[in-house]
Amino acid sequence: MLGAIEAGGTKFVCAVGDHLGHIADRIEISTTVPGETMKEVLAFFQKYSIDAIGIGSFGPIDINQESPSYGFITSTPKTAWKDFPFVQTVKEAFGVPIGFNTDVNAAALGEATLGAARGFDSCLYITVGTGIGAGAVVQGNLLQGLSHPEMGHILVRRHSEDSYKGTCPYHGDCLEGLAAGPALEERWGDKGFQLAERSEVWELEGYYLAQALMQYILILSPKKIILGGGVMKQKQVFPSIYKHMSDLVNGYVSLPELSEYIVSPGLGNDAGITGSLLLADQALGRELEGKR
Amino acid sequence: MLGAIEAGGTKFVCAVGDHLGHIADRIEISTTVPGETMKEVLAFFQKYSIDAIGIGSFGPIDINQESPSYGFITSTPKTAWKDFPFVQTVKEAFGVPIGFNTDVNAAALGEATLGAARGFDSCLYITVGTGIGAGAVVQGNLLQGLSHPEMGHILVRRHSEDSYKGTCPYHGDCLEGLAAGPALEERWGDKGFQLAERSEVWELEGYYLAQALMQYILILSPKKIILGGGVMKQKQVFPSIYKHMSDLVNGYVSLPELSEYIVSPGLGNDAGITGSLLLADQALGRELEGKR
Ligand SMILES: Nc1ncnc2c1ncn2[C@@H]1O[C@H](COP(=O)(O)OP(=O)(O)O)[C@@H](O)[C@H]1O
Ligand SMILES: Nc1ncnc2c1ncn2[C@@H]1O[C@H](COP(=O)(O)OP(=O)(O)O)[C@@H](O)[C@H]1O
Ligand SMILES: [Zn+2]
Ligand SMILES: [Zn+2]
Repeated sequence: MLGAIEAGGTKFVCAVGDHLGHIADRIEISTTVPGETMKEVLAFFQKYSIDAIGIGSFGPIDINQESPSYGFITSTPKTAWKDFPFVQTVKEAFGVPIGFNTDVNAAALGEATLGAARGFDSCLYITVGTGIGAGAVVQGNLLQGLSHPEMGHILVRRHSEDSYKGTCPYHGDCLEGLAAGPALEERWGDKGFQLAERSEVWELEGYYLAQALMQYILILSPKKIILGGGVMKQKQVFPSIYKHMSDLVNGYVSLPELSEYIVSPGLGNDAGITGSLLLADQALGRELEGKR
Repeated sequence: MLGAIEAGGTKFVCAVGDHLGHIADRIEISTTVPGETMKEVLAFFQKYSIDAIGIGSFGPIDINQESPSYGFITSTPKTAWKDFPFVQTVKEAFGVPIGFNTDVNAAALGEATLGAARGFDSCLYITVGTGIGAGAVVQGNLLQGLSHPEMGHILVRRHSEDSYKGTCPYHGDCLEGLAAGPALEERWGDKGFQLAERSEVWELEGYYLAQALMQYILILSPKKIILGGGVMKQKQVFPSIYKHMSDLVNGYVSLPELSEYIVSPGLGNDAGITGSLLLADQALGRELEGKR
């Protein structure tokens, strides 16, 4: 049996299941401090005979297996979790292979294997929620270089009528600073779901997201783009993205029909936890091949 | 013996050599129309016993082996070359395995294998010349998705004191439109090499290139970044890039020392032709493995 942890800033989802994404049991635990949260996490898996555990974690995290801080949450603003040795803590408790990646890379893996990008060897998964993050599968592998991608903080061109300062503590008006949920709520003065009827909100949201997607497409050329997270529950953002994307790209690259190309998650809210099961399966596979 | 073609919009470089990048003979041919240019190209290789040929071509090109137009130059503004079946033409003449990719992907491969990024499994190669283009090696493979990357056309934020309209026929003031050689020459009214003493030119150039590099880093996280092309002969652009990059990234991601991370090509002007030799070697390897 495989174990999976989707570690988010607000809550952890833990599940047991198989490599086809079937989930046999699951639990949600709120994210407080490591001592507390991890106690509940470990207790959940103790009930099962687990062969491997996959972790899709909020970040930044260290996923470089050669690094001394591999398996750690690194410079997160959630101070209690800074320098938390995530992989080591789980490994110590269960002694099984551990897969470790970002929550969004896990979701990208889930969607590429079993979701909206099934059958493609590349996809981009973007979450627009409390923050903006993205993960990618490139030629069948989770994208990794010097570190994991941090696509939420790219620069966008400000709309001439938007004077909102932006929420990002590092960049002010980067993409996340202008277009994540908290920016939206502060700019327009209401909770996201209560802004549903105000078309100018979603028009502007599409304006910024389209710019980001253009950059991602020109740089990565993904075969499918999946947009998840709380903000994307507002389906009216999609047509605004399509319209602005067409204007921006202006025929320079040929893309599939945008409504087929840029879509909602096929796995709904389960992209991350399903991908984490797959991370467990990959870790098990590496162990069996004796590669670790 | 391996053959290599670096097909540029101004000239073609052809070479014969080996998989270690040793070049035994080479020729330069100006780019006119396919009938003329290709006749000279084929004549050059006729003198040798060639086992495989690698082509690094200007684009856009079709590198998707499943596509009916695989091996073609596609929608290039150089009308004589539009829909030119490049691979097919070379294959017909020599019947050997052909490797085919963009000129910048070839250069990235050359630099990752034998140049400034030797020993790394990832790098980004950017040329800033008549246009701006980039190729990338990601986890050991040349980056490819729906198509090859088109990173030169990403959006940048305009400098508040720069009112130059931009040269890009598709986007006006995209990166290439604002920062490639022709934009520079039109904006400042002189040939690139004659602008050497005007520090404001290279300060602004660094301002735009730093923005682009920030996007590339956040999205791809390359282990090394190599900047080539005619404009980058002005070495004073590098410090301007480092300065603006530090300001923009603002400590959000931890990067190697910038002067080690963002560098000139280790292979000088031979990155592309050397990479094309390596494309030939890869094509030969695939043929021997019976995978084609
Ligand atoms: N139905 C909704 N409509 C619009 N915005 C929403 C909706 N639900 C959540 N949001 C926004 O998404 C943010 C939460 O993102 P979410 O993806 O649910 O969680 P997280 O990113 O913390 O995992 C909230 O700050 C809110 O602004
Ligand atoms: N020494 C130089 N200093 C500044 N700019 C240069 C220099 N040499 C070439 N350039 C610029 O680079 C452009 C040519 O780019 P180059 O990389 O040499 O060729 P191409 O991109 O056509 O392969 C010219 O348009 C010119 O603006
Ligand atoms: Zn930011
Ligand atoms: Zn452009």
